[in-house]
Amino acid sequence: MVDICLLGCGGNVPTPNRNLTSLLISYKGKKILIDCGEGTQVSMKILGWGFKDISVICFTHYHADHVIGLPGLLLTIANSGRKEPLYIVGPEGLSTIVKGLTVVSPVLPYYVDLIELPTDDENYFEDKIIQIGDMELWAQPAYHTMPCLAYSVNVNRSKKFNVEKARLNNVPLNLWNLLQKGENIKEGGKVYTPDMVLGEERRGLKLSYCTDTRPTEELISFVKKSDLFVCEGMYGDDEKLPKALENRHMLFSEAALMAREAEVKELWLTHFSPSLANPEEYILNAKNIFENTFLGEDRKISTLNFE
Amino acid sequence: MVDICLLGCGGNVPTPNRNLTSLLISYKGKKILIDCGEGTQVSMKILGWGFKDISVICFTHYHADHVIGLPGLLLTIANSGRKEPLYIVGPEGLSTIVKGLTVVSPVLPYYVDLIELPTDDENYFEDKIIQIGDMELWAQPAYHTMPCLAYSVNVNRSKKFNVEKARLNNVPLNLWNLLQKGENIKEGGKVYTPDMVLGEERRGLKLSYCTDTRPTEELISFVKKSDLFVCEGMYGDDEKLPKALENRHMLFSEAALMAREAEVKELWLTHFSPSLANPEEYILNAKNIFENTFLGEDRKISTLNFE
Repeated sequence: MVDICLLGCGGNVPTPNRNLTSLLISYKGKKILIDCGEGTQVSMKILGWGFKDISVICFTHYHADHVIGLPGLLLTIANSGRKEPLYIVGPEGLSTIVKGLTVVSPVLPYYVDLIELPTDDENYFEDKIIQIGDMELWAQPAYHTMPCLAYSVNVNRSKKFNVEKARLNNVPLNLWNLLQKGENIKEGGKVYTPDMVLGEERRGLKLSYCTDTRPTEELISFVKKSDLFVCEGMYGDDEKLPKALENRHMLFSEAALMAREAEVKELWLTHFSPSLANPEEYILNAKNIFENTFLGEDRKISTLNFE
Repeated sequence: MVDICLLGCGGNVPTPNRNLTSLLISYKGKKILIDCGEGTQVSMKILGWGFKDISVICFTHYHADHVIGLPGLLLTIANSGRKEPLYIVGPEGLSTIVKGLTVVSPVLPYYVDLIELPTDDENYFEDKIIQIGDMELWAQPAYHTMPCLAYSVNVNRSKKFNVEKARLNNVPLNLWNLLQKGENIKEGGKVYTPDMVLGEERRGLKLSYCTDTRPTEELISFVKKSDLFVCEGMYGDDEKLPKALENRHMLFSEAALMAREAEVKELWLTHFSPSLANPEEYILNAKNIFENTFLGEDRKISTLNFE
């Protein structure tokens, strides 16, 4: 249903063994990409899901390892034949960053629409940022050394058609299809509404992405009950806490605590420090707190299905 | 003596199999890098020659595949501990490009000095651009779809000390060393000059790099008698000539013709089109014209030695 690919699992700097962290979400022919470091387009090329239907590129923040890949990717998307507009979403400063980096890709065959989100206003995140097909994109300020956002993508599930209910409400057979699609219909002096034929709310899917940040209460609420929680784990060793505090990153154990408190289904750790050669050495630091933890790896793939 | 590494051999776009074309030249603890696409710093990391002593970064031109790696590389050089100034050389527009791309790396612990070369003035290339240790950097306008430069690095060889000549000129023994170092010395009412102890001129080393460009007479003169000529060969098949003309690139055979006319010692082909999956299929198109042709590959290394 919703296809997810973690394009890279590295942090800070691209290395021979790890691409930089970014996440690709694909659903019904539309894609959202979160973060785009140097080499992200190469990882996408290896993945083979194509470039043309990337509808939104989101930036968590503007440290180089999250954004430098933008101009090259925009050109590759152009070469793929895209003509439809593309959204770029990010915290304050977005237009300066995009204007700067695209000095080498000034002319594109599609329109680029910037959605710049001020992170200093506590209340503005009450609504979704944008609807991309059936995907809703949400954001929440994170706590890093510069303005930073966490993202969540929700896919709502349509209500199931309830034949019994339709008959009980005496809805004519010829209206069932339109009502199921959500239309209100007036016929024979009577108004028919979708709720007359549709069953209960059904749980959708939720996917969350937090990097680079310290854990916060607001983020725990924001990622609550995610089906998949992709979260930074810059350091595996709990003794790196002073460094994590100083650079506003997280330990594996802190990400796991967030996952447990937020009651997510599954946690993927990512954005490993280049100095963290063997993340598997520290996986128990997370698993002892939240069992369903997995280490990110380049092009780790998952498909989220409705219950 | 002079260590050379072709960091990548691809053109247009970084691909899973090829890094983008750029050349690293290392001599006596100083390095010159020509071009820096997305992923160049990763290829340098694999190479393992370090980042700290890069003294100059040269750009041939400002198409994305030659420059996007700049901001990430500047940050990595910063992390390597460099404090000495670094030069960036390129055709007109350099300051706009550097200002744009470094929006994500605005503060560096070393000074960056830009040397912008106007390509519309035929006469200004009569002098070397800059001297980096014992390396001289030269440039020459190329012929591409935007202002573009070819580069040449010359390493001059010092003259050999000639004992016989020193004795013949009655040079006191205690002055030999200083005279060999190039100093003029006045002693006992007499002036001693280096030519009184030094032998004949000795051939140095010359390395040339041409991409992206069509062949021109000026470039043939510019790369004349290079020990190594690194030249673009965007297309292997001679039937791609119309495309080469349109996009102002070269065929393998055209690069080989340049090499033969310029009487270079060795030709490396690079900047292969992503559509050129197997360049070896076309190598004879070059070798039949210039036998000492080699296909570039990622991190192809050579050491140039004085004769």
